Amino acid sequence: MVRNRLTTVGAIDPEVLAYTAGDDIALDLALAEADALGTAAHVTMLSRMPVDPPVITAAECRKVVRALIGIVGKARAGGLRIGLADQDIHLAVERMLTEKLGEAGRKVHTGRSRNDQVALDLRLHAKVRLIEVIESAGGLARVLVEFARRHAAVPMVGRTHMQPAMPSSVGLWADAHAEGLLDDAALLLAVYSLNDQCPLGSAASYGVPLPIDRQLVADLLGFSRPIHNVLYANNARGRNEQAILSALAGIMGTLSRLAQDLILWSMPEFGYFTLPSGFCTGSSIMPQKRNPDVLELVRARAAAVASSAALVGELVRAAPSGYNRDIQEAKGPFLKGLSVTRDTLRILGRLVGGIEVHPEALRAAFTPDVFATDRALELVAGGMPFREAYHHVKAHLDELGRMDPDAAIARKTHLGAPAGLDFQADLARCRDLARFAQDERRKLEKAFSRLMGVAWRL
Amino acid sequence: MVRNRLTTVGAIDPEVLAYTAGDDIALDLALAEADALGTAAHVTMLSRMPVDPPVITAAECRKVVRALIGIVGKARAGGLRIGLADQDIHLAVERMLTEKLGEAGRKVHTGRSRNDQVALDLRLHAKVRLIEVIESAGGLARVLVEFARRHAAVPMVGRTHMQPAMPSSVGLWADAHAEGLLDDAALLLAVYSLNDQCPLGSAASYGVPLPIDRQLVADLLGFSRPIHNVLYANNARGRNEQAILSALAGIMGTLSRLAQDLILWSMPEFGYFTLPSGFCTGSSIMPQKRNPDVLELVRARAAAVASSAALVGELVRAAPSGYNRDIQEAKGPFLKGLSVTRDTLRILGRLVGGIEVHPEALRAAFTPDVFATDRALELVAGGMPFREAYHHVKAHLDELGRMDPDAAIARKTHLGAPAGLDFQADLARCRDLARFAQDERRKLEKAFSRLMGVAWRL
Amino acid sequence: MVRNRLTTVGAIDPEVLAYTAGDDIALDLALAEADALGTAAHVTMLSRMPVDPPVITAAECRKVVRALIGIVGKARAGGLRIGLADQDIHLAVERMLTEKLGEAGRKVHTGRSRNDQVALDLRLHAKVRLIEVIESAGGLARVLVEFARRHAAVPMVGRTHMQPAMPSSVGLWADAHAEGLLDDAALLLAVYSLNDQCPLGSAASYGVPLPIDRQLVADLLGFSRPIHNVLYANNARGRNEQAILSALAGIMGTLSRLAQDLILWSMPEFGYFTLPSGFCTGSSIMPQKRNPDVLELVRARAAAVASSAALVGELVRAAPSGYNRDIQEAKGPFLKGLSVTRDTLRILGRLVGGIEVHPEALRAAFTPDVFATDRALELVAGGMPFREAYHHVKAHLDELGRMDPDAAIARKTHLGAPAGLDFQADLARCRDLARFAQDERRKLEKAFSRLMGVAWRL
Amino acid sequence: MVRNRLTTVGAIDPEVLAYTAGDDIALDLALAEADALGTAAHVTMLSRMPVDPPVITAAECRKVVRALIGIVGKARAGGLRIGLADQDIHLAVERMLTEKLGEAGRKVHTGRSRNDQVALDLRLHAKVRLIEVIESAGGLARVLVEFARRHAAVPMVGRTHMQPAMPSSVGLWADAHAEGLLDDAALLLAVYSLNDQCPLGSAASYGVPLPIDRQLVADLLGFSRPIHNVLYANNARGRNEQAILSALAGIMGTLSRLAQDLILWSMPEFGYFTLPSGFCTGSSIMPQKRNPDVLELVRARAAAVASSAALVGELVRAAPSGYNRDIQEAKGPFLKGLSVTRDTLRILGRLVGGIEVHPEALRAAFTPDVFATDRALELVAGGMPFREAYHHVKAHLDELGRMDPDAAIARKTHLGAPAGLDFQADLARCRDLARFAQDERRKLEKAFSRLMGVAWRL
Repeated sequence: MVRNRLTTVGAIDPEVLAYTAGDDIALDLALAEADALGTAAHVTMLSRMPVDPPVITAAECRKVVRALIGIVGKARAGGLRIGLADQDIHLAVERMLTEKLGEAGRKVHTGRSRNDQVALDLRLHAKVRLIEVIESAGGLARVLVEFARRHAAVPMVGRTHMQPAMPSSVGLWADAHAEGLLDDAALLLAVYSLNDQCPLGSAASYGVPLPIDRQLVADLLGFSRPIHNVLYANNARGRNEQAILSALAGIMGTLSRLAQDLILWSMPEFGYFTLPSGFCTGSSIMPQKRNPDVLELVRARAAAVASSAALVGELVRAAPSGYNRDIQEAKGPFLKGLSVTRDTLRILGRLVGGIEVHPEALRAAFTPDVFATDRALELVAGGMPFREAYHHVKAHLDELGRMDPDAAIARKTHLGAPAGLDFQADLARCRDLARFAQDERRKLEKAFSRLMGVAWRL
Repeated sequence: MVRNRLTTVGAIDPEVLAYTAGDDIALDLALAEADALGTAAHVTMLSRMPVDPPVITAAECRKVVRALIGIVGKARAGGLRIGLADQDIHLAVERMLTEKLGEAGRKVHTGRSRNDQVALDLRLHAKVRLIEVIESAGGLARVLVEFARRHAAVPMVGRTHMQPAMPSSVGLWADAHAEGLLDDAALLLAVYSLNDQCPLGSAASYGVPLPIDRQLVADLLGFSRPIHNVLYANNARGRNEQAILSALAGIMGTLSRLAQDLILWSMPEFGYFTLPSGFCTGSSIMPQKRNPDVLELVRARAAAVASSAALVGELVRAAPSGYNRDIQEAKGPFLKGLSVTRDTLRILGRLVGGIEVHPEALRAAFTPDVFATDRALELVAGGMPFREAYHHVKAHLDELGRMDPDAAIARKTHLGAPAGLDFQADLARCRDLARFAQDERRKLEKAFSRLMGVAWRL
Repeated sequence: MVRNRLTTVGAIDPEVLAYTAGDDIALDLALAEADALGTAAHVTMLSRMPVDPPVITAAECRKVVRALIGIVGKARAGGLRIGLADQDIHLAVERMLTEKLGEAGRKVHTGRSRNDQVALDLRLHAKVRLIEVIESAGGLARVLVEFARRHAAVPMVGRTHMQPAMPSSVGLWADAHAEGLLDDAALLLAVYSLNDQCPLGSAASYGVPLPIDRQLVADLLGFSRPIHNVLYANNARGRNEQAILSALAGIMGTLSRLAQDLILWSMPEFGYFTLPSGFCTGSSIMPQKRNPDVLELVRARAAAVASSAALVGELVRAAPSGYNRDIQEAKGPFLKGLSVTRDTLRILGRLVGGIEVHPEALRAAFTPDVFATDRALELVAGGMPFREAYHHVKAHLDELGRMDPDAAIARKTHLGAPAGLDFQADLARCRDLARFAQDERRKLEKAFSRLMGVAWRL
Repeated sequence: MVRNRLTTVGAIDPEVLAYTAGDDIALDLALAEADALGTAAHVTMLSRMPVDPPVITAAECRKVVRALIGIVGKARAGGLRIGLADQDIHLAVERMLTEKLGEAGRKVHTGRSRNDQVALDLRLHAKVRLIEVIESAGGLARVLVEFARRHAAVPMVGRTHMQPAMPSSVGLWADAHAEGLLDDAALLLAVYSLNDQCPLGSAASYGVPLPIDRQLVADLLGFSRPIHNVLYANNARGRNEQAILSALAGIMGTLSRLAQDLILWSMPEFGYFTLPSGFCTGSSIMPQKRNPDVLELVRARAAAVASSAALVGELVRAAPSGYNRDIQEAKGPFLKGLSVTRDTLRILGRLVGGIEVHPEALRAAFTPDVFATDRALELVAGGMPFREAYHHVKAHLDELGRMDPDAAIARKTHLGAPAGLDFQADLARCRDLARFAQDERRKLEKAFSRLMGVAWRL
């Protein structure tokens, strides 16, 4: 089995092959489409390269592209398998092309390395996933803002240190999470742009003595530009994944706090919210249970994505320049981080949309002490310096009366306060994200359709 | 001692005070200037607030600002002390103002909380530090590009897996690190922009029933805009620090790989580079030692900054909305991360500038196997499919002759290859960073000078 | 499909089921055997419980145990599948028992919860894996000590800061890694003992109003003791995994440094060692490559296991008492950490055994400066205070002559120095580990054979 | 200033000195006592070394020891300063001895390196701190068990997923945290034993051609044994710190969950507990606040210690054998982790002792659904298979009546259940920890008194 491998140094020990290639042959299935697109672009460029004899002819190129379309079809249908002897998707694709086309297959690897390919595959895959993440982040933010607008006038005890603090509103609470997401999305856009550089043509980091056209390859694949320095194209492995995972961890961190709030405020002791029942699970021993498992898992998966970001950075921190195999351990966490963030955004979009709000429980939670600061500021309005007012109220806490919570939040009208929120501005930011995602997806589909010669949908 | 505290709930146990306020009273000294500026802006706004009687008069405001200038002077001169009873810089400043001005001091805290203040102080402090980091990153990148240009034609064995791989150049190597830094800087600019939002006016997260003007405060302090939702102003604690630390960790990660390369290639067994002797240290037992301690510490501090980024994210991941004291543990790592990144960039700028390059040792390292791929591509140029050429060369490795390394790198002329680098484009990116830093610093100095009524230099 | 679930709260949304149970249905296959053993022990105990009517009869118990043996057989043969509707192995086993046995199957969950089961399964699985890890750690340590003994007299430049420092030996180097592993193993034994407590009988953490016999269950399963407090049995989730992963990360950290040394000293520029060729891999583009992929992956996987330890600790750090679903995210990293550590120990055992040592290259690396300290100590022997001798040698480094490296290491005879190593003592420690592993495996096999009524091999 | 340094390689750049030695000159003050003890032991051994002329005479040795006692006195009185030119405590002590004693001072560094010293200092310092941690862990566990015993019969709603689950007790809850601590302490003892090995005599990792007596030094300093392999003595740097920090992180993780529980159950919405008022702090703006800052900081500091453990492991993971300066970054986190864990244990011991329990609120929280499982098990007792009973109760949740919580917990009598706890066994484990700590402290004090010739108290 090991005999037919394309890149053997003598025979590799089977235990070694399992240790080195083990996860890749499963993980790489997710990269099959990106790998085929990359190969199509590379071969198209080779066929136009001004050398005589041509490295690959236009006719050979067309055959390769057609065969690649077949491979993608098989991958999408779940019919692709990567053998341990293949080691990875790159050699598997080359093997399949060679089996089908003979000599043309043996030419496709001219002037590139697997390092190039995996760098390309991951950037292309990440690009598509990031578009979905950006779209879903905008979607959940919109759901939160609409929830906030719907319940803008419902009072809610604001807390610090988890203790009752001051009058607030359900609208302020939900909108705060939306703005968190929108700010997080700004970093997503920044890493999207960094990721949007084509690494192909670095060979194994040091370029080749061939007149390859790296700009053309970048254009064919819909990238905004090629990475310039070819060694940097490889040094960026790990850094690019780490930057993206950090941005995803930011999103997940915001979602985790939202989840934590929802877990707390839907406990029967608070009863502010009821979670939609389809999103709760039971117990195998306690017949009455209705557990917020989804939200607990959001909390945990936020930790997992953050951990992945840290791990990937660590893998390359002390690595010398050029490719080192350590980086392979980044692939699993990277692919998982992208998909779990997208899935979490989507499921929370539906969950938040189904939350039931209980205004009576929310109002009942206003005990007199929640109004202590309002009372102190009343004294200030009458001319007392704040610190004296503060001490006066503190000394007479027992005399504090309960105020009307609805009136209390209506009085907070300054910018960004419960009665001073600009929901329209937030919704506009949500729409910007949706539009960005849509535009980028269309650009990609157009480039891939042109490259492969058939309509391409993502 | 504890008796005079401004915010006591009964008396706090001294051991408790030490446990809760311990580090703050030292760390907060770094925030004194930001705290004074924030108080000046807040009080200026209060003095213009359309209420009758005014919360604070214009005359009181002028006295407060003058007293704050005095406090900053004391802080800059190293003469400020924060007592354990003060707990933090915020209460220390209020205490000093009250001691000096009486009633005016007791008014300054109207409509804000310490949460507001610490959020403001950290953003203002970070803004100034980030300007320095951006400037220093641009500076080191420029040193690297100039080093690369100077040694563009000096061959260097390119490596993968730390093993000799293909012909490369000192220019490609140094320029790759420069481009890494320049891409990292793109994320710095993104977090700079996120950080450049004024949190003041959130009170303790829920706003106040006073007509405070948050836009005015943001303008007075030179921020690009106020944070909108006041609860988000607090929820962003930790997230903002985490995003900045992640960007700094990116920079440090790039520097760590540069350091690792320099440690390796200056080992006597390689002898490619000699480090400037002022940057090496000796041993207490071995008289001959000349150790690259600075570079080893760069490697280690890169790990420390990355660890801080992860920690800070973790502190808030599962925290419910609103302020929680956990976030206080972020202060030390955040301040340290900012200063250590700046210092590392600066010291490496000088170290790289002093490296001696040894072209003869670099050329001597080219053994025949380094040219194996070039040989295979020669066969390809003669019409052989690449995979056959590859196998042919592999089967005849013993026959590989040594080629001329200078000629080998001169043949790699495509975009981003050793002979295809665009140093001018890289230098332009360095200049953009320098200009950005300069512009932002000037804007800040102008705003602070106007606010405080005296020329303000950062 | 969702209809038949055993613990539904109304119907769970399919997207929710995928989000919550997704990984478990794959990961849990590794726990099938442990789950069946746990169920056998629980049911055996229930059948002996002094209540009337019996919860389950002795005859029913026998039928259940026989059916469980069938399930284990299917699992071992790779024929078990857990459906999404099952959610996990626990409900899958209950379903299979109920399908096969009817009423007896509906009784097996009396007085326990899935929390109990997963806690039990993980401890039982970990116990078996830890025995393998301890055995393999002892095995690799032995290989290293024997390597050290074989090359005890071969000089090697000792380094600090990666720079040449003092005369050392291959024996000292290899033995140092062995002792690292032996010390790491001490922590493995400590976590093995902590893990060796049976959690069954906690129900969902709060016990049950039934006279269950938790000591009996612990005995039947070969545990050293039951966990006492039933709430702690659940609170220990995460803590136990974290402690084990930390110990494994210790092992992996030691292996990573060994790998790093081997990568460096097998570079052609050093040429101290040649790695066995079956453990090296090639390149898809460079015909000459022979890369130490296994060792690079050891380095990376050490980072991954450490990251898992940190993640698992984080998942439970701020969790309130009692089961929280967050802990589920620990399962994948935990199972992976156990198997990857075992596999790494095993593969390195073979790799180290195949290393070729090149004494001539090792001796050639001794430049005169390596003897600077020896020279200073010669002056000390003549009566000069060390600090003067140090400065004298430093001032005359150019005059340092090359000494004989073999003689230099032969002179270092004190305890633990190159010529003062006690290999017998180290080998005895290796044997202790092997014996411990063997004894524990036998105890387990004996207990399981008795419980299931058939000979049981692990 | 730099001129007089003991180990200069030419002149070190002042910026470089600040970058490399910066933190050490502050952190090392904590190590002054350990450094002096180590030097006393080393010099005592040198004075007995069978060489002629003696390296150091018995008379010189006595003078050195007397001078060291003076240095410790100064350090304890807070009067010691380490200059930047000293770089660290080791060179500072050598400088002070040389200034005071002349030639004898110049002899003390014979046959050892600063690597030896810092390794020794950290192990000695850690040993003393670990004794305090073990003592405090036993102390807090005792407080928790006594609290548990006092409130053993007070019902408390047991929770899973933070939702009401089953009847439980305050006793079960508190005792579970105590058992967590006691199990954590088992790992503390394991790392205590690993740490209890003397590294002195490794020189810079490779031994010296002198007949030093490493066993004697270990005995003089009260260590259980010397580390054997001298290279391992250095490779263990980082690993030892990491193992200890992991054990401390385990303790802190358990404390964090205790803190989280206390924060939740002392919220007014639950009102189960009232925290002692001296342990709560107020707000600068809200007069009514009473915040559980200590507990929030415990949560956060648990994250910080865990982060430190991970960082330290990372610093050495990919480091080659022998000393590398990276490890210096471990010193701060290591010292901090030791002291913060001790302080947290101590403060929680006092806090838990002061908690007020509100049985009426605890009983009032028992809603009928909490008894659903008890009801199902009643049906089981009547002969119904559990799964049927479960479904029956689930189908009739509305009919569930409230049971008596006191009776419910009294019925859970099996091992480790609310009415089956063995407090005596837990108290015996607490006493074992206290005794261990006391014995170890006495052994150390005895060894140090003998070594220094004066009564020594820790």
